[in-house]
Amino acid sequence: MRLLFLNGPNLNLLGTREPGVYGRLTLAEIEARVRDTARGLDPLLEIDFRQSNHEGELITWIQEARGSAGAIVLNAAAYTHTSIGLRDAISAVGVPTIEIHLSNVHARESFRHQSLIAPVCRGVIAGFGAESYILAIHAAVTITKA
Amino acid sequence: MRLLFLNGPNLNLLGTREPGVYGRLTLAEIEARVRDTARGLDPLLEIDFRQSNHEGELITWIQEARGSAGAIVLNAAAYTHTSIGLRDAISAVGVPTIEIHLSNVHARESFRHQSLIAPVCRGVIAGFGAESYILAIHAAVTITKA
Amino acid sequence: MRLLFLNGPNLNLLGTREPGVYGRLTLAEIEARVRDTARGLDPLLEIDFRQSNHEGELITWIQEARGSAGAIVLNAAAYTHTSIGLRDAISAVGVPTIEIHLSNVHARESFRHQSLIAPVCRGVIAGFGAESYILAIHAAVTITKA
Amino acid sequence: MRLLFLNGPNLNLLGTREPGVYGRLTLAEIEARVRDTARGLDPLLEIDFRQSNHEGELITWIQEARGSAGAIVLNAAAYTHTSIGLRDAISAVGVPTIEIHLSNVHARESFRHQSLIAPVCRGVIAGFGAESYILAIHAAVTITKA
Amino acid sequence: MRLLFLNGPNLNLLGTREPGVYGRLTLAEIEARVRDTARGLDPLLEIDFRQSNHEGELITWIQEARGSAGAIVLNAAAYTHTSIGLRDAISAVGVPTIEIHLSNVHARESFRHQSLIAPVCRGVIAGFGAESYILAIHAAVTITKA
Amino acid sequence: MRLLFLNGPNLNLLGTREPGVYGRLTLAEIEARVRDTARGLDPLLEIDFRQSNHEGELITWIQEARGSAGAIVLNAAAYTHTSIGLRDAISAVGVPTIEIHLSNVHARESFRHQSLIAPVCRGVIAGFGAESYILAIHAAVTITKA
Amino acid sequence: MRLLFLNGPNLNLLGTREPGVYGRLTLAEIEARVRDTARGLDPLLEIDFRQSNHEGELITWIQEARGSAGAIVLNAAAYTHTSIGLRDAISAVGVPTIEIHLSNVHARESFRHQSLIAPVCRGVIAGFGAESYILAIHAAVTITKA
Amino acid sequence: MRLLFLNGPNLNLLGTREPGVYGRLTLAEIEARVRDTARGLDPLLEIDFRQSNHEGELITWIQEARGSAGAIVLNAAAYTHTSIGLRDAISAVGVPTIEIHLSNVHARESFRHQSLIAPVCRGVIAGFGAESYILAIHAAVTITKA
Amino acid sequence: MRLLFLNGPNLNLLGTREPGVYGRLTLAEIEARVRDTARGLDPLLEIDFRQSNHEGELITWIQEARGSAGAIVLNAAAYTHTSIGLRDAISAVGVPTIEIHLSNVHARESFRHQSLIAPVCRGVIAGFGAESYILAIHAAVTITKA
Amino acid sequence: MRLLFLNGPNLNLLGTREPGVYGRLTLAEIEARVRDTARGLDPLLEIDFRQSNHEGELITWIQEARGSAGAIVLNAAAYTHTSIGLRDAISAVGVPTIEIHLSNVHARESFRHQSLIAPVCRGVIAGFGAESYILAIHAAVTITKA
Amino acid sequence: MRLLFLNGPNLNLLGTREPGVYGRLTLAEIEARVRDTARGLDPLLEIDFRQSNHEGELITWIQEARGSAGAIVLNAAAYTHTSIGLRDAISAVGVPTIEIHLSNVHARESFRHQSLIAPVCRGVIAGFGAESYILAIHAAVTITKA
Amino acid sequence: MRLLFLNGPNLNLLGTREPGVYGRLTLAEIEARVRDTARGLDPLLEIDFRQSNHEGELITWIQEARGSAGAIVLNAAAYTHTSIGLRDAISAVGVPTIEIHLSNVHARESFRHQSLIAPVCRGVIAGFGAESYILAIHAAVTITKA
Repeated sequence: MRLLFLNGPNLNLLGTREPGVYGRLTLAEIEARVRDTARGLDPLLEIDFRQSNHEGELITWIQEARGSAGAIVLNAAAYTHTSIGLRDAISAVGVPTIEIHLSNVHARESFRHQSLIAPVCRGVIAGFGAESYILAIHAAVTITKA
Repeated sequence: MRLLFLNGPNLNLLGTREPGVYGRLTLAEIEARVRDTARGLDPLLEIDFRQSNHEGELITWIQEARGSAGAIVLNAAAYTHTSIGLRDAISAVGVPTIEIHLSNVHARESFRHQSLIAPVCRGVIAGFGAESYILAIHAAVTITKA
Repeated sequence: MRLLFLNGPNLNLLGTREPGVYGRLTLAEIEARVRDTARGLDPLLEIDFRQSNHEGELITWIQEARGSAGAIVLNAAAYTHTSIGLRDAISAVGVPTIEIHLSNVHARESFRHQSLIAPVCRGVIAGFGAESYILAIHAAVTITKA
Repeated sequence: MRLLFLNGPNLNLLGTREPGVYGRLTLAEIEARVRDTARGLDPLLEIDFRQSNHEGELITWIQEARGSAGAIVLNAAAYTHTSIGLRDAISAVGVPTIEIHLSNVHARESFRHQSLIAPVCRGVIAGFGAESYILAIHAAVTITKA
Repeated sequence: MRLLFLNGPNLNLLGTREPGVYGRLTLAEIEARVRDTARGLDPLLEIDFRQSNHEGELITWIQEARGSAGAIVLNAAAYTHTSIGLRDAISAVGVPTIEIHLSNVHARESFRHQSLIAPVCRGVIAGFGAESYILAIHAAVTITKA
Repeated sequence: MRLLFLNGPNLNLLGTREPGVYGRLTLAEIEARVRDTARGLDPLLEIDFRQSNHEGELITWIQEARGSAGAIVLNAAAYTHTSIGLRDAISAVGVPTIEIHLSNVHARESFRHQSLIAPVCRGVIAGFGAESYILAIHAAVTITKA
Repeated sequence: MRLLFLNGPNLNLLGTREPGVYGRLTLAEIEARVRDTARGLDPLLEIDFRQSNHEGELITWIQEARGSAGAIVLNAAAYTHTSIGLRDAISAVGVPTIEIHLSNVHARESFRHQSLIAPVCRGVIAGFGAESYILAIHAAVTITKA
Repeated sequence: MRLLFLNGPNLNLLGTREPGVYGRLTLAEIEARVRDTARGLDPLLEIDFRQSNHEGELITWIQEARGSAGAIVLNAAAYTHTSIGLRDAISAVGVPTIEIHLSNVHARESFRHQSLIAPVCRGVIAGFGAESYILAIHAAVTITKA
Repeated sequence: MRLLFLNGPNLNLLGTREPGVYGRLTLAEIEARVRDTARGLDPLLEIDFRQSNHEGELITWIQEARGSAGAIVLNAAAYTHTSIGLRDAISAVGVPTIEIHLSNVHARESFRHQSLIAPVCRGVIAGFGAESYILAIHAAVTITKA
Repeated sequence: MRLLFLNGPNLNLLGTREPGVYGRLTLAEIEARVRDTARGLDPLLEIDFRQSNHEGELITWIQEARGSAGAIVLNAAAYTHTSIGLRDAISAVGVPTIEIHLSNVHARESFRHQSLIAPVCRGVIAGFGAESYILAIHAAVTITKA
Repeated sequence: MRLLFLNGPNLNLLGTREPGVYGRLTLAEIEARVRDTARGLDPLLEIDFRQSNHEGELITWIQEARGSAGAIVLNAAAYTHTSIGLRDAISAVGVPTIEIHLSNVHARESFRHQSLIAPVCRGVIAGFGAESYILAIHAAVTITKA
Repeated sequence: MRLLFLNGPNLNLLGTREPGVYGRLTLAEIEARVRDTARGLDPLLEIDFRQSNHEGELITWIQEARGSAGAIVLNAAAYTHTSIGLRDAISAVGVPTIEIHLSNVHARESFRHQSLIAPVCRGVIAGFGAESYILAIHAAVTITKA
């Protein structure tokens, strides 16, 4: 099974800025941890890990997941709260999707409290830093087995 | 006269997903019907039919319509409800624009009830599936004659 | 097939007042165009065209459409935004109904932006003046065939 | 380390009612899985697993966790959305707390979209059925190590 | 005269947690100060001082005040903002009630700005730490004399 | 058949306070009337009549009604407007429930106009004083027969 | 005593449409049941049973009830939520009025949750199908005796 | 000049009900005063004084005022707050219209604070009982001269 | 009897600015008309006519009206919508007050639609330019006689 | 230490108007009580007691308190709910300020429920009539000692 | 040309309080910088620089600018968000006005986000401390030339 | 120092459309003025001037400013009101940013009144046409010196 990790705008800056909010790991280091964990769980688990600042590109990647990925782990960052297009894409492709966040969005500004994406995802994991990515692997394996 | 049909995010998936909401035709099949109808109405009616998942690209296409298209038929999909940029582009270029939707957006989630684009369009057609595109051709011909 | 065109309050004044908003045609002239178009499409298409200022009378007419009309084209005018009774009647009789407006209601006062009727209609056509009526004939023919 | 799992109102009914929403496992079966997983992770990890329909009793249990539990995993169920008292208790005792839900609350009634508790928790896990409990063990181990 | 001091959820934790918000005194120390002040004012002034985390228990205590207490001093804590039951109890028993708070609730989270209880109380004292309790004794003596 | 009458907070004070709002009968007198009416209707109709100020206790009683009661008549009083826990319990046990009120809650403060419980009940009866309880017996008999 | 039953818009369609929502009885059958029940209760109880789609006609009928009817049982249907005129009429004539609904309006669309009429009625009965009418007879007899 | 006085729903009950709110004069007595005052001002001033409970009839009367009345004095009563149809009629006919009320609507229920009609009227007079009608004659004479 | 006319901020600029909104008369010319009309009605009617840009000064003038003026005619201009102090002063002094406006405030910006003062006035006259002042004299004479 | 008592608009009318709301004491009598109490507590406690209807004057007095007063007791009356200027002044001068009210503002009109000033004050005392002033002296002494 | 700088409430305290928010310069020092800059730009540019805590005085100064000042630079401080009177004065006098703020009001409390004045000003400059005043001189020179 | 000027969607159309709103200068002409002004101020001031219709591209450019630009001048146009991504980018890179607008956005549609970006910018300049760009250079120079 292939797991598609999609990272939204500004996540390419991870580790070098605002570590108090987002942690000290870079996105590359998180990717490495994700690959390690996946390998440990199941050598056949394939990891596809990407980042884009473009809403349209993220939409296209979700569309391409149809038939090629068993699950999507989506950290949509700022687009979580404004993108109906990401929501529609998830609904359309039917690939089970897990929404994740590094920080606890509910403890931040009020415009980060509502997710347009959550209602069409299978579940949400937020607030555990890089561990949110690791937990999502376990969750993805579970929901694709069920 | 050239008619510019612009299709927003996820409409490239039409026909293969959620036919209960969006109908069973693919976007290519809708394009074919549009071309057939246009040809039947007036052989000189030129059809330009595009799709993009990028808000910025749709904005650019609307800008390029100035002087080159008689009317725009815009199915902005998810961007209908969040894009002030598309609205500003329509206002700026002054090409008469018709907002269309395959589904009856008023019978869906509440965040689909408000259109940021409608106030700067000439009119709205929603809920008739692919027929919304066909009706828009007739409407476009009428308003560009008036 | 019989098509029932129902026109709500103040539409009997069309053509003589506020042509900037509603166009210069009288309701009788629109009716004539509707009849012409219908005849051109299908000589067997019967047109029933009415107007009332009374919400109760419009409700009764919708009720009577059951079994006698193939589709309703409803320009509910002011009642669009306040009448749950019209909405309930449409739901109850099950005759496919198309909501139309002469003007683009979304570009006017905010209390005209919400339609209580749209969620139980098949589709909406707004902003094309008398052409809204003509487009509705095409739409009605399409949806009653499907 | 002791992990305190607190379950709010109606969770004692799990498994026998509304399995479409909450899954088919009983709370006792979930508790067994939690104990198995904990044992597998670390034989010294002590699990304390409770349920109450009383807001006041849940508050008292949270208070008692101070000094005796390394982390709280809280499925507050209905009280998630109305209890400022649970929130104040979590703030007061300073034990890291993880909010969990069996179902994806964001895809349900709007009064379940806002959590009064989330802003004072470390993170949130929702939508994975009994797996939400298992993921919370991993998350708890991680955050108490950090 | 008997004065009934009722303290709501989490106030049993006073003094040991979040002294920046609630002060360094424990509830027992506040009770001692209240008893000292009452004794100094009038040896016949009887003080009944209680705390509960249960909304239902607080309601029952208010009910029992009828005929047995001259006034109630109520620090409802979290229940201030959510309990219609406390409000109904105060209305029902007709014992004059003074709402108090240690902290200035108007300077904290917005969900603490509205009190469901204040409209049925005689007055409100908030923001003076333990001194709020002392001021309430004076106020209670005054309003029961008037 | 057993009918379970559940009475929420402050209803134990009935008859002695605010008779202008709630009538002059005590809860015991209402219970007597309920038993008389039930006996008159059907000697086999068993009445179980309880009151609690605790939300948690009411939730537990609703849970226990599963399999033991044919219908629940619930006067949730103040909890009507704030308890998602009672709502979830009613949904979970599947016993048909009738919401009743002594007073016409719609003619009182605005926070009493919304019921969180009504959407999962079979029906609502409000405003007839003790007669609301008597009408509920008739309604319960009817809906359990249907 | 004369009881005036007034039925609002679309209730003349009862029984033939949407039985899932409104039940299978026609309005004539409900009227027959009402007359049977009334006769059984008191041969002198006179039933006046009417329906209109016109708000104005319903207002006039309420006005005429003054001095001629002991109570009004009003199923205002769609006008429940929009008619200040019906409310003003009830206030003006002073005849005790009972608001009834076949369906549980609180479990339907949010615009059906608020009643403009309820605050000036004596009570509300909703959700019991035709039984709502029968219960209203009992309630009317009770409140006119009191 | 002809002055058209239109009175909305329930105003036919004036004088016999709720004199504390609406005064003790009947509508016929107010009409007599209006005619007296008009005669005193100008024998050529013609008064047309009507009342209807039907929104549709009021709309029709406004429409007929075009060309036949110099000004309309409209006490729309309950329809003031809900009728877009009356508003549209006033806009359409272009006859200067004065909105009047017997009572001070701003001191009553909040749903009476907003007038849908006022923005298309020339002015508003409210709160002076029957004197509101007399003042409106003076105002109408003034604005039709200007 | 003395009538106190109070004019709020910016009304000293009348006649020279924005005549489309406020008319071409200066405040001095309006005052002259007011004095003429008063003299014509009753030589004993004393007119006191003032203007201030200061909210505090207007409050003081209202206070001083107690015992010295039979009625106040208040054009509070901008303070109409923001001053609770003027409202409290009117409530406190008990002199009947008439709120007037030159323009139809309901046809202007939404922040001018709500008056904080109207609920404590006897009535409101708005939209008739200087005639609003003249009508207020008649109204004042009427309400002080009643 | 000097205590500065500032009284806002209309408080100069105290005692002679609306005693049901504000009590029967005049402001001068309250001042006398304040001076008596202060003298009894500490002969060195200096009382400065002022009233103004002008927001600007109150702001200036607060500014002047810097360095000359140990605490401010502010009954801002109507300005409590509308004046950001008073709030800014309190923030700027840094003198501890106590907000007081004679009446229980939470039991009055909804526009009196929000205080713009409370968040920058140390505490709030409301609802005890003249006793609110006396309690404020005690509170002021306490907070200036701490 | 004369430039009128108007400073609202509490700005006389600048420099000595809350320098983190407002900077360390006193208003006199800012005035000196403004005069220096103006002199450097154009020796004929006359600067009139004032401050008041009174809304009414600021209104009067704006009125007096008509004919005597080429532009107004207005730091209305707290009145920015509450004064319709300042707005009306700016509209009335027609002198181009520039709204300025020392701090970035959009990054502060939400009640500072809306300006009632901005819609009638030519432009807004906020967040640059004393430099906001200097930039306003340049802007004023530009817009009065255009 | 390098100043980065970023221009959002539709600004490439400047000068040729809606000059009443946006002025007659093209973006190239504005750029020329910016370069001229910068050169006049300081020959070492480097100007980087870009435009994009893509939100993602603007985000990327802001990210690249870290370490390479002394300040960003951002005219985000339509994205001002909808882009959390731009906001997050500005927060992340820590380069001081100035928000500018050609038109006075506060005098336009209400959805343009709120800026998601302003709270993380140093200041805002709006409403001065091309002069807004020139003022921003001065402001940028000032804030980077401070």
